[in-house]
Amino acid sequence: MTLQRWKLTVEYDGTDFYGWQRQEDGVKTVQGTLEDAINSFCQQRLTLHVAGRTDAGVHARGQVCHFDLDYGARPLTAGNLVKALNAHLRTEPVCVVQAEAVDQDFHARFSATNKLYIYRILNRSAQPVLDRGHVWHIRKPLDVLAMQRASQYLLGTHDFSSFRDAQCQAKSPVRTLDRLDVRVHGADEYGGVDIHIHAEARSFLHHQVRNMVGSLATVGIGKWQAEDMKAALDACDRTKTGPTAPAEGLALIRVDYA
Amino acid sequence: MTLQRWKLTVEYDGTDFYGWQRQEDGVKTVQGTLEDAINSFCQQRLTLHVAGRTDAGVHARGQVCHFDLDYGARPLTAGNLVKALNAHLRTEPVCVVQAEAVDQDFHARFSATNKLYIYRILNRSAQPVLDRGHVWHIRKPLDVLAMQRASQYLLGTHDFSSFRDAQCQAKSPVRTLDRLDVRVHGADEYGGVDIHIHAEARSFLHHQVRNMVGSLATVGIGKWQAEDMKAALDACDRTKTGPTAPAEGLALIRVDYA
Repeated sequence: MTLQRWKLTVEYDGTDFYGWQRQEDGVKTVQGTLEDAINSFCQQRLTLHVAGRTDAGVHARGQVCHFDLDYGARPLTAGNLVKALNAHLRTEPVCVVQAEAVDQDFHARFSATNKLYIYRILNRSAQPVLDRGHVWHIRKPLDVLAMQRASQYLLGTHDFSSFRDAQCQAKSPVRTLDRLDVRVHGADEYGGVDIHIHAEARSFLHHQVRNMVGSLATVGIGKWQAEDMKAALDACDRTKTGPTAPAEGLALIRVDYA
Repeated sequence: MTLQRWKLTVEYDGTDFYGWQRQEDGVKTVQGTLEDAINSFCQQRLTLHVAGRTDAGVHARGQVCHFDLDYGARPLTAGNLVKALNAHLRTEPVCVVQAEAVDQDFHARFSATNKLYIYRILNRSAQPVLDRGHVWHIRKPLDVLAMQRASQYLLGTHDFSSFRDAQCQAKSPVRTLDRLDVRVHGADEYGGVDIHIHAEARSFLHHQVRNMVGSLATVGIGKWQAEDMKAALDACDRTKTGPTAPAEGLALIRVDYA
């Protein structure tokens, strides 16, 4: 038996998924849907290992996972694997954008060196229509420059307990945040502003991005000064910070490997 | 009785609408949904006049329409009108992004001097997921430069009979096309290309944009040379051109007024 390890890059719309992780109670998850497609393709019940689990409602353009496949003596190309899995996923809100044959020492989670998330805020009076389910809608005008100033206090290696969910299972609350940028991505002539927040790190705590964004929005509406972000970080106390931003604005864009 | 004419700019997701125009058989249309919201707000059954009807499945970021409202002696600001209508549209895939009080000589259709449509093509192997319902999915690699060269043959004032739907009710098939550009809007690292086709004119024939895009795609896949677009235009014959591109890739972005 020769096992080949395959790295898959997948895109999904998190709206109708109950998050990444397979659940025993039959609710629809990304992992369960992808594992079912793999099973339909090769009649083997295999387990996917993921770069980072995402919560219900969170989207991905470039999530990464891997699995080991014994495909016997028949040749299997990356292109054929992509096509076969996508044929089984045709009606699902998830697809495989790339497959790569990788060495056995590759691990989707442990080999990852960087992850890029983008959080989108639609800042305007009218409710989202074309972007519904993919943005956090905030009506009150946001001070984007103050949000950007505040974001810079979080860069570097810190105890991020203030931005960590109570359910977080990580051993340490210390993380190194390499990038946190708040930018106007687009503005229309009717007063609508599309704000993109880029967050990059090797790994994040549970809800860390959404909790940081919630505090940035607190700065944006003028309830906090930019400098209050530093005090919030130093407090190492979740109760001293802003709300958790809704899942639907968040998307995992890319996972990098050395 | 004093009538105030209001110009509304509206955004809608065309997926679940049977086009713009109100229908008598109860199917869901953009006009019908907006007129119902106006009726709920002011208890008057008013008629909306639109810049340009869109077909089933076609989206809009900046469609324009107008109506005349007798609001009595009470003051009504543009901001309050937007909020009131959006409150009635909360669960609908349409919203009002702007309202403006205009003079009685303004007409959403007849005063328009320019319209911008953008047609999106997702060119990759995997089916669309995050952009499902908002792009035309073409698997075969497209030659974008050839498409751009072909597009330039259509600029200017021509008889566009070759790109006109049989149902078109316009008196003349002559139109002036001011812009037709085929551009790579974005490309991801997995081979996916997001192509945007910008089309601008004072007015278009029925299905003109979708028919032009269908022929541009015929060039893109290499079945036609760029120069074949000129012969297709000169033929003044719908049967000599490419297919009609699907509605879901099309969006009316903006209507301009002098």
